Amino acid sequence: MANVIADPGALRQGDLREHNLELLLRLVQRAPAALSRAELATRSGLTRATVSTLVDELIRAELLSEVAPAPRSGAGRPSMGLALSGQAAAGLGLEVNVDYLAACVVDLSGRVRHHAVVYADQRPRSADDALAQLDDLAHDAAAAADAAGLTIAGATLAVPGLVHAGRVPLAPNLGWHDVVIPECLGGFPITVDNEANLAAIGEMAANPQAPASFVYISGEIGIGAGIVVDGQVMRGGRGFAGEIGHVAVHPDGPLCRCGARGCLEQFAGQDAIRTEAGRSLPADARAADFAALAESGNLPMVTALDRAGTALGIAIAGVVNLLDIDTVVLGGFFAPLQVWLQPAVDREIQARVLAARWTPVTVVPSTLGSDAAVRGSAYAAVQAVVGDPAGWIATRAAAA
Amino acid sequence: MANVIADPGALRQGDLREHNLELLLRLVQRAPAALSRAELATRSGLTRATVSTLVDELIRAELLSEVAPAPRSGAGRPSMGLALSGQAAAGLGLEVNVDYLAACVVDLSGRVRHHAVVYADQRPRSADDALAQLDDLAHDAAAAADAAGLTIAGATLAVPGLVHAGRVPLAPNLGWHDVVIPECLGGFPITVDNEANLAAIGEMAANPQAPASFVYISGEIGIGAGIVVDGQVMRGGRGFAGEIGHVAVHPDGPLCRCGARGCLEQFAGQDAIRTEAGRSLPADARAADFAALAESGNLPMVTALDRAGTALGIAIAGVVNLLDIDTVVLGGFFAPLQVWLQPAVDREIQARVLAARWTPVTVVPSTLGSDAAVRGSAYAAVQAVVGDPAGWIATRAAAA
Repeated sequence: MANVIADPGALRQGDLREHNLELLLRLVQRAPAALSRAELATRSGLTRATVSTLVDELIRAELLSEVAPAPRSGAGRPSMGLALSGQAAAGLGLEVNVDYLAACVVDLSGRVRHHAVVYADQRPRSADDALAQLDDLAHDAAAAADAAGLTIAGATLAVPGLVHAGRVPLAPNLGWHDVVIPECLGGFPITVDNEANLAAIGEMAANPQAPASFVYISGEIGIGAGIVVDGQVMRGGRGFAGEIGHVAVHPDGPLCRCGARGCLEQFAGQDAIRTEAGRSLPADARAADFAALAESGNLPMVTALDRAGTALGIAIAGVVNLLDIDTVVLGGFFAPLQVWLQPAVDREIQARVLAARWTPVTVVPSTLGSDAAVRGSAYAAVQAVVGDPAGWIATRAAAA
Repeated sequence: MANVIADPGALRQGDLREHNLELLLRLVQRAPAALSRAELATRSGLTRATVSTLVDELIRAELLSEVAPAPRSGAGRPSMGLALSGQAAAGLGLEVNVDYLAACVVDLSGRVRHHAVVYADQRPRSADDALAQLDDLAHDAAAAADAAGLTIAGATLAVPGLVHAGRVPLAPNLGWHDVVIPECLGGFPITVDNEANLAAIGEMAANPQAPASFVYISGEIGIGAGIVVDGQVMRGGRGFAGEIGHVAVHPDGPLCRCGARGCLEQFAGQDAIRTEAGRSLPADARAADFAALAESGNLPMVTALDRAGTALGIAIAGVVNLLDIDTVVLGGFFAPLQVWLQPAVDREIQARVLAARWTPVTVVPSTLGSDAAVRGSAYAAVQAVVGDPAGWIATRAAAA
């Protein structure tokens, strides 16, 4: 980000306040620990007087809060630290997935304040029915936010399929075709995005040590990827990037719901693993059930997971050969199964990545598992406030 | 690019001249037709007097030249147009590929001034021998440039393999392992890059109508890709991106020189096509020979090209599913064979790209064919002058 005080020529006086409010908020957000006003002045290039005026405004707006200073050994009175406040602004995250609906509220400090998941197969239902139930979940979440004194600053919906301009042209595993998402859910205007992209954003938010570039692979009934390069999700020309579930692993393999043969989903998707593992699992078994069976040494399950890991490894090796990204996060359903998937994934990467000897590829489980997408949705939504604190302040003033 | 006159705060007076020289040069370079001084003043935000002073300096340095104005119907005397000059600055491009060596000189206006290719299988030779012969070609090219009154402003070498920090850790089809490239070739300091990346740059330079994002696929003995997103080549974390030749197409397929099984190269590389087409082609047959045979209706060749196109289509569908890029340029050896490859490529894309119905993928032959990499190398080299015209002017003044 540009240090705005250093190039005032392009800005008017009113813009300057807006930009500097945003600048200070972002500096606090990026810092690994609470910052003092003096540190903020140094990092922003603003005078200490200006920093104090703006910080006071951000504290009154409940965007920043003062926290106890870190202990220090030097002389002088330690000053209070500044951190993002969890008191007021929050984001609403929503998710439709193949076998569950979810809603989540995250405050500006990143803390989860509400989280509800309803497990139910969405495939037999119409999109309208699923979205109507999600609207109920969204209202419940908004009520919970309200009860906690939080104001929803934005809402985002995660969908496991292609998303473009508020529509879902295709979500094959949901059986959705050209579904128009309602403009509002839970009473809030909705931004729609692909679930793997949002899960990748959730991982970045949950794990400040995450590398700047990584591939997040979301395993559910379907499989998607969020490709992050230098901290940004690559969305492609129309927002359809990341469809790793439909990369061909064995081009003559089984027919996929997308109409093609041998897609990754047909080997490593949740249904594919269940089928391969035989009759030992009920249709509504979840990742923990798969893991328990593998843990108990059940041979069909261990074999099914090795087969899934091999297919995953072939697809991941392709991504790494194409993009030279050295970190892969296995998310969703894959996270708790990582230990059984990883040997095969590593084997394929070693065998197939041309630069494997010079670029060791690290495969790690996601920290959030199947919660990543809804968490990332809420996080993305509350980020609107960081991008426009002056707008938040003006809205609050108008509402008061 | 920032309009530098509008944010003088960040610049000193001396920097300002350097930045504005570069700004004017880039504005002329980007314009589809010659610009007048008045148009340059409008686009740059600089005064007409400043533009005239700087333009005169760029003309004296032979970086810009005055060209006949476009005919116009309005009143008043038409002013001279300005275009990049082909009189002085040039780039030296070099290429080692599996079955040829090449050298090329491109002037600042983008015109090719020298181009030499020596066809010979480099695989039986050592890297030292190949590089020694390339050094001779580079000296010949430099002599040709000199005879034409051109000054080489930079030199770039294209290699079909992994490139990192002036070394080639691996170029499997050349049999190169950990080859250190000499610091100079033809007497000029050398920048080394992957041939597919440079070929993509060559295509952008040769075709101003190229979309901002495309995948260039370079087919030779090996197969590589230059992935261009918003006008920039994606190089990945260590510069190893674009290894599409080692994406698995049939994971249980034939063994590749890289050690893995079923890589794209084993189905669509030049040797794979030749082998599949049977004994009708000598070992040194080139793309035109393949095309002539296909044109004559030779069934084994037509079948081999369909098989290659199918494999290419499977790999391309994977790239499009991952990156949502809607233009694919078939380059190198593939360009003259496009007509026989395309039906199978299109078929696989239609079948396998999840968003194919909403994102039609255009597959086009490269305009430069097997010349793209060496042309892009020379073009990349001469770009150094556009990035630092003041340095060029100072070097000429010192040499005069």
